[in-house]
Amino acid sequence: MIINKNCILRLSRYKNALTRLKSLGFVKVFSDNLADAVGVASSQVRKDFSLFDIQGKKKGGYLIDELIEKLNIILGKNKVQKVVVLGAGNMGTAMMNYRGFEKEGIKIMACFEIDPEKFNRDAIIPILPLDELKTFIKEHKIKLAILAVPDMAAQQAWGMLKDAGIQGVMNFAPIRLRDAEDYVINNVNLELELENVVYFVNALNRSKAKE
Amino acid sequence: MIINKNCILRLSRYKNALTRLKSLGFVKVFSDNLADAVGVASSQVRKDFSLFDIQGKKKGGYLIDELIEKLNIILGKNKVQKVVVLGAGNMGTAMMNYRGFEKEGIKIMACFEIDPEKFNRDAIIPILPLDELKTFIKEHKIKLAILAVPDMAAQQAWGMLKDAGIQGVMNFAPIRLRDAEDYVINNVNLELELENVVYFVNALNRSKAKE
Repeated sequence: MIINKNCILRLSRYKNALTRLKSLGFVKVFSDNLADAVGVASSQVRKDFSLFDIQGKKKGGYLIDELIEKLNIILGKNKVQKVVVLGAGNMGTAMMNYRGFEKEGIKIMACFEIDPEKFNRDAIIPILPLDELKTFIKEHKIKLAILAVPDMAAQQAWGMLKDAGIQGVMNFAPIRLRDAEDYVINNVNLELELENVVYFVNALNRSKAKE
Repeated sequence: MIINKNCILRLSRYKNALTRLKSLGFVKVFSDNLADAVGVASSQVRKDFSLFDIQGKKKGGYLIDELIEKLNIILGKNKVQKVVVLGAGNMGTAMMNYRGFEKEGIKIMACFEIDPEKFNRDAIIPILPLDELKTFIKEHKIKLAILAVPDMAAQQAWGMLKDAGIQGVMNFAPIRLRDAEDYVINNVNLELELENVVYFVNALNRSKAKE
């Protein structure tokens, strides 16, 4: 089975829509409802679900609770997601202190560094030497990493992570990492995020000037 | 004129498509070409352009160089974009050191902090006391900010920025800032970026297990 990135994005949108429907007191849902909520055809919803062996009752639709549970299992939201950070610079440290992860079930297990002055085995999130990376990742069966190293070190660091068994990475270095389809790379492009703000503010002021 | 966020996003996509076309040696472009490149109807392209008084020659299309220049002016890419950072913690410092901004014409002018131990007037990007924020922003006519303060301080900090004349912000605090349509707020949701990696890796492994 070939996984389609858009399919996964749709699954996470279905899940969000279902959580909203549940909070409104709904118990059942039809593929038409989900299609409307996410903005796709209802045949697409049924196709996505059948890909993961999720079946509804012909005329009874899907039970929301069951559906959320199944989607959570597919998306891995039902268990703690263990992550390592590479690089204990400002970005890496910001990630270790970031309060948004824990509530989503994401746990940073350790940070790996090259600079001995930054090592700290006793911290809540220990900062360890890079040469312990592979053993640690294998021992804790970790599949996910945050890459927060300088751009020049990013490609090599990603190679080390892959070699240790990491399958998915969120990359903050301002270079675009690429790899085979067996790996999941999210290149977080902060300049693009800021550029969008720039564009909107400029357009806003131009439209004001025209009024 | 009411600015539509999707319209601005399309303008920036047109610009990217035009830059690619130019690099391939093209000189002229038709709304049909741009529509195909961005995935919208050609009537949408013409509508977006007419909103900003960009007119093509009936049968001659648009000159790519002229079009890029006009879009750059609308999007503000033709001049240096001055930005302040709020908060000299790890995330704020990471932003001051981030190498991706400068090549996009984004210049961080100063950082503002509450902790006197972090003040540093002599740094390349000075770290200044918070009570100098308003004067500095007005003096340098700055419209853009990066918010890198703890979540509890974010709302109040945004109030100070608005009061000083800031119109657009990239917010890293893990709370969702909202405001009137006169302001541009980009809440960078890092847990969502990481969750997407989690989802894909999980789905990838499930599909492998099924093979």
